Amino acid sequence: MLRLFRRRRRPAAAPVLTPRSEAVAAVRVELADLTPAPEPFLGQAAYLTLVLFENLGRAVQTAPTTGAKTALGGAAAQVLEAHEGLVTELRGLGADPVVAMDPFRADLDAYQTRLQGADWAETLVTCYLTTGFLADFFTGLAAGLPAGLAERIGLLLDVDHGERVLEEQLRGVIEHSPRIASRLAMWGRRLIGDTMLVARSALALDAAGAAPDAARVEPAFNELIGAHTRRMDALGLTA
Amino acid sequence: MLRLFRRRRRPAAAPVLTPRSEAVAAVRVELADLTPAPEPFLGQAAYLTLVLFENLGRAVQTAPTTGAKTALGGAAAQVLEAHEGLVTELRGLGADPVVAMDPFRADLDAYQTRLQGADWAETLVTCYLTTGFLADFFTGLAAGLPAGLAERIGLLLDVDHGERVLEEQLRGVIEHSPRIASRLAMWGRRLIGDTMLVARSALALDAAGAAPDAARVEPAFNELIGAHTRRMDALGLTA
Repeated sequence: MLRLFRRRRRPAAAPVLTPRSEAVAAVRVELADLTPAPEPFLGQAAYLTLVLFENLGRAVQTAPTTGAKTALGGAAAQVLEAHEGLVTELRGLGADPVVAMDPFRADLDAYQTRLQGADWAETLVTCYLTTGFLADFFTGLAAGLPAGLAERIGLLLDVDHGERVLEEQLRGVIEHSPRIASRLAMWGRRLIGDTMLVARSALALDAAGAAPDAARVEPAFNELIGAHTRRMDALGLTA
Repeated sequence: MLRLFRRRRRPAAAPVLTPRSEAVAAVRVELADLTPAPEPFLGQAAYLTLVLFENLGRAVQTAPTTGAKTALGGAAAQVLEAHEGLVTELRGLGADPVVAMDPFRADLDAYQTRLQGADWAETLVTCYLTTGFLADFFTGLAAGLPAGLAERIGLLLDVDHGERVLEEQLRGVIEHSPRIASRLAMWGRRLIGDTMLVARSALALDAAGAAPDAARVEPAFNELIGAHTRRMDALGLTA
């Protein structure tokens, strides 16, 4: 799957662009007409933040030090804040948040179960890579929502603080036992396929009810994978 | 232990007093000279909020419905906010939060392990009863801290929203399967002993390094147990 979406060579990005803003911009441009209606968008994003929170909760529970626990608590708080903001937006539309989230529950619960990880380090990798990828994707896709809402979603899904915490914790783990890196790299490669499927499932269907084909969405996903690779690189992991 | 601390008959409280404020007031009056120094107080309370958060995280993970997950997420966010506030207070004192929390870690981790519960319902009971009891206790004990800090701690440990969420979820569980009530009542009785030990361990030692004796702290603990009993009663559970 990574081969299919191999990253095309592209001119060097202007230095003002962070990895996040590059991937977000690609989704915004390429997938703008595949944004679903506000209610399913918010419903899926809201349930997804619960799933990301549960992964972070597990990371706090299994953290081996007080310092890791309290730092990861901050990342968990940020994702919960995003969740509450999305629920508030659903209420603002007059929607029942639970009804809006429920259709996405079975698939996202299954996704979460597959990505629990065997230990604390794998859970950290899951949190770091899935939060990054999906925040990029949903922030970009939000650009197709009504004006105002799109901007508010962008603010809610700004999880940079949590990502920095996760990167820092993972860096500590890898420095402490370098031999873990190849196992974590394998885990990172495994989870990205499932994560791409979650992102793809959020795209609006066409008039005939069909999902957009791979070629249609490839450019945006190439950028998302590029940002994923840079996250792996930042830790010295081979993507 | 419950027999030892049997609640004395007392005149009916003025209706303005909630169960929480009664128990808090008793701790404030009876244990005012047993408040530890700010740093150990904040260190223990900060690590404790992490433990309460981990329990709530487990409740979110195992919740059987989307509605329960999102509601419990709100309770978890409130406890994390308290944790972050306590960490901020430690920093304000010039203390390293991790160094301040670490001495309490082994005991509180052991406490948490004993109170995980066998299933979602027991985890909910744990969250509901321990958060209530310990918020009462630490809020009351905070009155012996320097002025200003005491009031801020009171605001941080105001976890009423989370308690209402937990009570509502538990009420739903018990209405749905009334036969579970006796098992949950037994679980509630079991965990209160451990929770009292955590509270007692927070009291300052005397000049000779001895813990205050039972008779000295009995009146305040009787009030705390009274509030605990009212929490059990509110769910129709026999304390």
